[in-house]
Amino acid sequence: MSAKFISLTSDFGLKDPYVAEIKAVILTICPTASIIDVTHEVEKFSIRTGAFMLASVAPYFPKGTVHAAIVDPDVGTPRRPIIVETSQGFFVGPDNGLMMIAAEAQGIKQTRVIENKRLMLPYISNTFHGRDVFAPAAAHIANGSPLEEFGSKITDAVKPEFALVTRNRGSLEGEVLHVDDFGNIITNLPGKEIAGFQERLVQVEFPPHPPRQIKIFKAYADVDPQEPLALIGSHGYLEIALNRGNAARAFSVKTGNKITLSKT
Amino acid sequence: MSAKFISLTSDFGLKDPYVAEIKAVILTICPTASIIDVTHEVEKFSIRTGAFMLASVAPYFPKGTVHAAIVDPDVGTPRRPIIVETSQGFFVGPDNGLMMIAAEAQGIKQTRVIENKRLMLPYISNTFHGRDVFAPAAAHIANGSPLEEFGSKITDAVKPEFALVTRNRGSLEGEVLHVDDFGNIITNLPGKEIAGFQERLVQVEFPPHPPRQIKIFKAYADVDPQEPLALIGSHGYLEIALNRGNAARAFSVKTGNKITLSKT
Amino acid sequence: MSAKFISLTSDFGLKDPYVAEIKAVILTICPTASIIDVTHEVEKFSIRTGAFMLASVAPYFPKGTVHAAIVDPDVGTPRRPIIVETSQGFFVGPDNGLMMIAAEAQGIKQTRVIENKRLMLPYISNTFHGRDVFAPAAAHIANGSPLEEFGSKITDAVKPEFALVTRNRGSLEGEVLHVDDFGNIITNLPGKEIAGFQERLVQVEFPPHPPRQIKIFKAYADVDPQEPLALIGSHGYLEIALNRGNAARAFSVKTGNKITLSKT
Repeated sequence: MSAKFISLTSDFGLKDPYVAEIKAVILTICPTASIIDVTHEVEKFSIRTGAFMLASVAPYFPKGTVHAAIVDPDVGTPRRPIIVETSQGFFVGPDNGLMMIAAEAQGIKQTRVIENKRLMLPYISNTFHGRDVFAPAAAHIANGSPLEEFGSKITDAVKPEFALVTRNRGSLEGEVLHVDDFGNIITNLPGKEIAGFQERLVQVEFPPHPPRQIKIFKAYADVDPQEPLALIGSHGYLEIALNRGNAARAFSVKTGNKITLSKT
Repeated sequence: MSAKFISLTSDFGLKDPYVAEIKAVILTICPTASIIDVTHEVEKFSIRTGAFMLASVAPYFPKGTVHAAIVDPDVGTPRRPIIVETSQGFFVGPDNGLMMIAAEAQGIKQTRVIENKRLMLPYISNTFHGRDVFAPAAAHIANGSPLEEFGSKITDAVKPEFALVTRNRGSLEGEVLHVDDFGNIITNLPGKEIAGFQERLVQVEFPPHPPRQIKIFKAYADVDPQEPLALIGSHGYLEIALNRGNAARAFSVKTGNKITLSKT
Repeated sequence: MSAKFISLTSDFGLKDPYVAEIKAVILTICPTASIIDVTHEVEKFSIRTGAFMLASVAPYFPKGTVHAAIVDPDVGTPRRPIIVETSQGFFVGPDNGLMMIAAEAQGIKQTRVIENKRLMLPYISNTFHGRDVFAPAAAHIANGSPLEEFGSKITDAVKPEFALVTRNRGSLEGEVLHVDDFGNIITNLPGKEIAGFQERLVQVEFPPHPPRQIKIFKAYADVDPQEPLALIGSHGYLEIALNRGNAARAFSVKTGNKITLSKT
């Protein structure tokens, strides 16, 4: 019997029993599941931050992992619950774009709507499909239920409309995807765009703040404590940080802010 | 070999090593246990909130689960450590009412005091029975130790004295059981009391604030963003919420506040 | 097949996907690992607090546990990644003193540098050795890889330079190791130094605050709610607490502050 991994990503927080209810439902249906929390501290209702989290972490999971992701501001409305099968595993959650960046990176094989009530909890609340619909679906997939039993195929799953990177002459415009718990500012500017800039000064602007000159380094400790630097973070994107400090606080920056990076 | 599920509920928080010490003790005694955190963010010393959490989550766990629950302001005094066996599983924790709502809902078969020192850690601290008494007891139960080995039967376990719902002519009085991480206000007014009120206006009062007219809906997204609504939450109780907003902050309400619901 | 326990201690927090990336890497290499979070809320970059956490919790884990610990302000610089084998298990993390209190208490058998790139992830980032170096090492140790495959033996691992306890005539000077989530003030004064002081008044001073007279008791509930007491905590050190209250807030004390304890 091979291992059955189910990852959980949500904005439920950890002070409530919601996450435990999801786990209890999963383990009732699939007692041998190994459940891994990605995070439950996604900014409330932020599909964009959840999508970034899931896309960052999914490549590290074993093949066959079922990723259940629930950031679901439209729970209880007709938005569809879906399953996406990729070449590496499965994604289960609401059809609101949350899972599509991670899934597309793995190569999507098929997408289905969850319609079969026999594969849900007997009573479906209007407020908590994480427990009543997505948890049972994830557990049944882990148990090997064929995807065609869940519902019909669709080809029009919602794609996320996140800010794209704009290339101007000598500058890149993007946005802040996430501020992590260290205060590191993670942008959507791909690391490969600035490869070869090591130890070069760049101009970083978070409007409406004035631009700053920051050097690109390899490691936080390449600058003195509390000094700023830019680097390619572990997720592959440009990150602005303070060595042993909190860059988001120092620069008054938060998720969704614009960033312009220019050569100097 | 069947799975051995142990759930943990406490007010220990996650910044300290306390929860990990409990898990380490459990896994030393019962290496095949599958441990599920309900929450460790119960409001410090709030037996009432812990009891609500446990009662919400327990129905979703597999049969035979051992629930260890520790909100224990009187640790180190003569309050009794107890085990409650129900028709669905087991509850282990202090005799202060914390486990009784969840246990009574499952049907209590027997209650025993934990007295046998051979089923505790060799050294019992005065401050941390979660690790020294309750964790070993939960692990030994999961291992199949007969309950009579732990200690004598009792019939006078402490019952919680939570606010009851008062019915007046055309109104219900109750209280706020819990404010969840979204700011949703969860009351002790049972959903079945307001079944059939869908889309009707009700008057909601959190004294000393003035009453408000709020409509009862099925789903958060049935109203515009930041608009208030009432609904029957996933736990089966009346809940006051703001679509994509924080109702407790908007209404200045916290756990333990009174609520009056009147027909209009 | 025996159980394979891996504990994780870090300052990564739980809002980011970092901890899940570590777990995903571990489970890809060692699918049967049972992973236990010690805490991920170590004060950012505080090697001292992390060392206290790990030393508190390690004695409770099953023999053979692999403890991965990452509080790593110098990640990306030439500080060495190391493995410490003790008589009870293994410690994996940066060579900055973080693991040495816990490891020395168990009896160190050997220490090795992690040099073999075949036992790391294929691409090593400069910012996240927790995922790229320490997680794979912990998983390979759990899988039984011989330690000599990781790298060469060393005998000069960094020892932590934490404040020692100073004994004067009738007084002890030490410092605050940790303030826990209840606000209990945990000091580095060993409990055995004050054994036999039960119910005696002592003078406690946190400079620059004036000294106070506090009585030593066995349990928090030995004094009235919100009253101060001193006791030997579950970790074996002198702890200053308020029954059902927050001592650190009441006394304006935080981690790293000095403490003087005098007989009266």
